[in-house]
Amino acid sequence: MTAGIDSISFSIPRLFLPIPDLATQRNIDPDKLTKGLGLQRMSFPDVHQDVVTMASNAAWKLLQQEDLHPSEIDRIYVGTESGVDSSKPVASYVISNLEMVYGESSFRYCDVVDMTFACIGAMDALHNCLDFIRLNPDKKAIVIATDLAKYDLGSTGEYTQGAGAIALLITSSPRIMSFSRTFGVSTEGVFDFFKPRRYLAKEDLGLSGNPAWHGVLEAGISLYKEQPVFEGQYSNECYINRVSDAYAHFKQQSGRKENVYESWASILMHLPYCYQGRRTFIDIFAAENPELLYSQPGETNKDKMKALAKSSEYLHLVKEKLAPAEMASGNVGNIYTGSLFLGLLSSLCHHASENTELSGLKVGLIGYGSGSKSKVMEAEICPSWKEQIQSVRLFETLEEATPISFSTYESLHKGELTHSVVAPSHEFYLQGIEKENSSLLGARYYGWV
Amino acid sequence: MTAGIDSISFSIPRLFLPIPDLATQRNIDPDKLTKGLGLQRMSFPDVHQDVVTMASNAAWKLLQQEDLHPSEIDRIYVGTESGVDSSKPVASYVISNLEMVYGESSFRYCDVVDMTFACIGAMDALHNCLDFIRLNPDKKAIVIATDLAKYDLGSTGEYTQGAGAIALLITSSPRIMSFSRTFGVSTEGVFDFFKPRRYLAKEDLGLSGNPAWHGVLEAGISLYKEQPVFEGQYSNECYINRVSDAYAHFKQQSGRKENVYESWASILMHLPYCYQGRRTFIDIFAAENPELLYSQPGETNKDKMKALAKSSEYLHLVKEKLAPAEMASGNVGNIYTGSLFLGLLSSLCHHASENTELSGLKVGLIGYGSGSKSKVMEAEICPSWKEQIQSVRLFETLEEATPISFSTYESLHKGELTHSVVAPSHEFYLQGIEKENSSLLGARYYGWV
Repeated sequence: MTAGIDSISFSIPRLFLPIPDLATQRNIDPDKLTKGLGLQRMSFPDVHQDVVTMASNAAWKLLQQEDLHPSEIDRIYVGTESGVDSSKPVASYVISNLEMVYGESSFRYCDVVDMTFACIGAMDALHNCLDFIRLNPDKKAIVIATDLAKYDLGSTGEYTQGAGAIALLITSSPRIMSFSRTFGVSTEGVFDFFKPRRYLAKEDLGLSGNPAWHGVLEAGISLYKEQPVFEGQYSNECYINRVSDAYAHFKQQSGRKENVYESWASILMHLPYCYQGRRTFIDIFAAENPELLYSQPGETNKDKMKALAKSSEYLHLVKEKLAPAEMASGNVGNIYTGSLFLGLLSSLCHHASENTELSGLKVGLIGYGSGSKSKVMEAEICPSWKEQIQSVRLFETLEEATPISFSTYESLHKGELTHSVVAPSHEFYLQGIEKENSSLLGARYYGWV
Repeated sequence: MTAGIDSISFSIPRLFLPIPDLATQRNIDPDKLTKGLGLQRMSFPDVHQDVVTMASNAAWKLLQQEDLHPSEIDRIYVGTESGVDSSKPVASYVISNLEMVYGESSFRYCDVVDMTFACIGAMDALHNCLDFIRLNPDKKAIVIATDLAKYDLGSTGEYTQGAGAIALLITSSPRIMSFSRTFGVSTEGVFDFFKPRRYLAKEDLGLSGNPAWHGVLEAGISLYKEQPVFEGQYSNECYINRVSDAYAHFKQQSGRKENVYESWASILMHLPYCYQGRRTFIDIFAAENPELLYSQPGETNKDKMKALAKSSEYLHLVKEKLAPAEMASGNVGNIYTGSLFLGLLSSLCHHASENTELSGLKVGLIGYGSGSKSKVMEAEICPSWKEQIQSVRLFETLEEATPISFSTYESLHKGELTHSVVAPSHEFYLQGIEKENSSLLGARYYGWV
């Protein structure tokens, strides 16, 4: 019952804000962001882009890349926490868009749905699609992670922003990596980062007696904000706790007593910012190497942990197993559900360009979703991984991106621009949103150019 | 690789509005709703109830009913289109609530997530959990459908409103029904019913130059409305088209040439209102019985279809295979993702009270989600189904519900009440929503009483 990733594609907005420009405007020492957190660029969607266009473009690229016919795709599962509708899934918009290119009804028998749990929904989509392929080895599934990580202007999350989509082709004869069925998980209901509705009582709007307000008859209005409510430091703690616990659960589930990550050529973690993995994996590293921790200089455990994080052993692990996944993250930013898979792609592209031999080696995937859950999975790299990755052109595409000025960035953030900064070409784009027809109000219309 | 439903529980708000009262207020002939559509009562959530409390209560009842320990539950998958947050899933709130009763960390290794595709998200959750159990027969999963079907006051959807949650225990030794692995699906991206954000430009609020407005720096605000944008007649057409096509796909996938529904003792369909199933299954009935259609009186195909719908053969099918599932729907209303499973429960409870022997018989499940997708699955009733259903007390519980006046209904609908109509007892309840602490703004707090 082999199942795994057969092909990977991506769609990242071609606009980016250089992080040093943001740092300067926010009176932050640029080095703190570029050297301290590893951030170089922040991808930002143009006027015509949203999670639907990114997902559609990533899926289209995947189909093109593998010369697949729509009828070969039995499932499209989307993981997102930036859905554009509370009922209609992003996946249904993707189907409509792809049918613009591939023809009416071409995805008629494709089973599609959205999965949501903060940044881990796409890992869950992958998990379920792997199970589906194990049971239906003649079928093919596509998993798409698509998100827009937008924070309030001037907030502490602003410099971690990013946007993008990753699409994975899941088959029973995967050419990139094959997953084991064992997984670890750890769940705790917390409020470290979430996207609630913001409630405003009509009294707060200066209205008394609950008069109708723009069609709202309720006593208050619920605002949707793309930006989350979060507490950075607390979310970091939740991440460490869940990730460490899910890793321990994975060990227990796989019946292994030995150091597990040592058998992983790469450790792929959810990266809300570039260096989050290297800064937090130290806890697992310490737990797996108690003697090494004990032998570190320092009086307290905290001192020893600090020393361990600077030890040659840990720095070696960072360089070998974590850094390759960071390379794209630093040039894109956080893409929520897609960050884990952007890291995977980054790592594979790096090793392909370095001509590293990964075939037969294992990698570990450690996802995290605020709110909160971590999941740990393991996969083995397949013999043809390099040929499969070589066509992807990740770093080359990022290299070709277009910088925007800080004022353009602010205007895009505020939704003040009505025309695209760079006109869409060879991609799906948002044409407009219905404002007149009451039975279509809010419908999103897309085009292909 | 057996997998199926081992136990079922439900949570329906105990308040209801008698449909004749609504009809009178809206100048609709009550018979049109009660006799024409089968609607008797509309369940409506009290001030302390929402999709989280209903889901938590249904899950709690399921655990109690089966005397299960939290550590036995490996998965809780929630299907909903009334999520309370765009990132944090309802499932994570459910975990927190259950831990109030079962103790801190008691669901630590439970894998939870939300799935969304209008009214079919919970069927997808079921589908994936069945696959999970097939691959992990020693594990147990819970699927929860939870929704609040709220429409604009005075709209044509108002009389179809309802609210509730259904929880299903999925195991490899199911005592209620065991699913076959074959499924049919049909997908088309349409706007028959959806829940988009309502965008208001700041100019529409009389503001020029994009000043900050209640913390919104964007050029417009996005309103969240629980109420959908929809077109009833068009949605009905989409339902018929998708359902008929998914049924045909199911036939093709299962390699059966004969009439499939004849082998089903019950036909369980998504019921947006009580009689939707009987009003639409006629298309499948006609397709499966072309000679019978041809022999009907009438000149045109339309005439013949009308006659067929009144034929003794079709009325017999309605009575035997469809009506038992309608009984609860007429007393609850639409509960979106839960409607299909409320119909299943209704049918089983009816047959248990009639002492019908269903063991070994097959049933068909036909789901529909606007936007749009239909899925068809088949299951076989297990020998112990009657004992498993007898403890559920569906009709008895509905019987004990409390009627509310039309003015109470309107006040609840508008969110004008601050105190519960009937105080919560032996249930999870919404305590409040954070308004002060900026890093918890919008967090929902629940209690157990």
